[in-house]
Amino acid sequence: MNRLYHVPLSPFCRKVRLVMAEKKIEVDLVEEKYWEPSGDFLRRNPAGKVPVLKMGAKYLSESSAICEYLEEVFPNPPLMPDNAQDRYEVRRLVAWFDDKFFNEVTRNLLYERVNKKIMGSGYPESRAIKTGATKIKYHIDYMGWLLDQRRWLAGDKMSLADFAAAAHFSCLDYIRDVDWNRNPGVKDWYAKIKSRPAFRSILADQIPGFVQPPHYADLDF
Amino acid sequence: MNRLYHVPLSPFCRKVRLVMAEKKIEVDLVEEKYWEPSGDFLRRNPAGKVPVLKMGAKYLSESSAICEYLEEVFPNPPLMPDNAQDRYEVRRLVAWFDDKFFNEVTRNLLYERVNKKIMGSGYPESRAIKTGATKIKYHIDYMGWLLDQRRWLAGDKMSLADFAAAAHFSCLDYIRDVDWNRNPGVKDWYAKIKSRPAFRSILADQIPGFVQPPHYADLDF
Repeated sequence: MNRLYHVPLSPFCRKVRLVMAEKKIEVDLVEEKYWEPSGDFLRRNPAGKVPVLKMGAKYLSESSAICEYLEEVFPNPPLMPDNAQDRYEVRRLVAWFDDKFFNEVTRNLLYERVNKKIMGSGYPESRAIKTGATKIKYHIDYMGWLLDQRRWLAGDKMSLADFAAAAHFSCLDYIRDVDWNRNPGVKDWYAKIKSRPAFRSILADQIPGFVQPPHYADLDF
Repeated sequence: MNRLYHVPLSPFCRKVRLVMAEKKIEVDLVEEKYWEPSGDFLRRNPAGKVPVLKMGAKYLSESSAICEYLEEVFPNPPLMPDNAQDRYEVRRLVAWFDDKFFNEVTRNLLYERVNKKIMGSGYPESRAIKTGATKIKYHIDYMGWLLDQRRWLAGDKMSLADFAAAAHFSCLDYIRDVDWNRNPGVKDWYAKIKSRPAFRSILADQIPGFVQPPHYADLDF
């Protein structure tokens, strides 16, 4: 059986969970306290990060490398378009969310509010929270602008870019950090992706010490 | 003509330059002071980062998305292996260097010593320099371990992973931050890749305020 070493509120782990669920690849989830790395865990991934996916005897790390691998080995349903220009756009947006959005928003909000508490490494810094709360507005506006021109973030078909973005937004939504009234196009996009069966396991997550807000799992939020 | 907006000592820009040179794709280099973003530059790339590659009327950003695109559109010589497992390993290592190595080493050494001076944003922090100088040793050891088992970093053929790593190492070598005596396998690897014609433009770089050390462009360093 495949096994995913993860933490529930990690956008990188959630991206892999969503892609596996969408492709109907079965996987056991094993929570990994990567901030207390054991020798076993470092043997599985010398980078000391989650997610780590065990498939057969192989351990795979780096979420985007994992997703591209899953796409190649389990091509159905496809989450990458069939021409180079459109695949470029998917990869650009995956990097946008996993790098720019992560550093400007996720790190400032989720890591300050949740990871610090779980790891016992202090209190949230109000300056970081404020920066994250400001920056997410620009990102929502940018996504709204993309979605004015396209059905999904990277084009007319759902792709890895949508799962990368939804993974971040679902984590932030759990801690009530998304203003869904800012842009109707972005809210519609999230409603569409949230309704997919692939999202169910993520909507069922319960993180000790952080109560799931009522709208989080509501498909008519 | 293709045009690459770049800065000379950016590993992400160098990775794209190396890939284009290896594939013999002609490109004009335009230096871009991305820390003083102009309206024009933000129109080219809303993420406000380099590299940005202009091909025809299109502007491409995010170095790894650019490299995958170039690989698909200009497949010769190939820099990606032909099976999914080996391509995964290339992508894992590209992410290793552009994320883990970047944050542990490049950011602590190059950004402290060079970017801060160029941008006029203060003096290097000795704690960061010390961290970077310690971490690079572990990375060289890890690369040495990989190269004990393989001719190139990701397998028996040269790939994007080698160019990603060489881009970081060439920047650090310019500021004398690589101890080439630490691991003979890593030194041999760098000597091999540095001797390629694709490396010539990078070995000719001269950065004002930072004198090129004599061994930097020497193929028998």
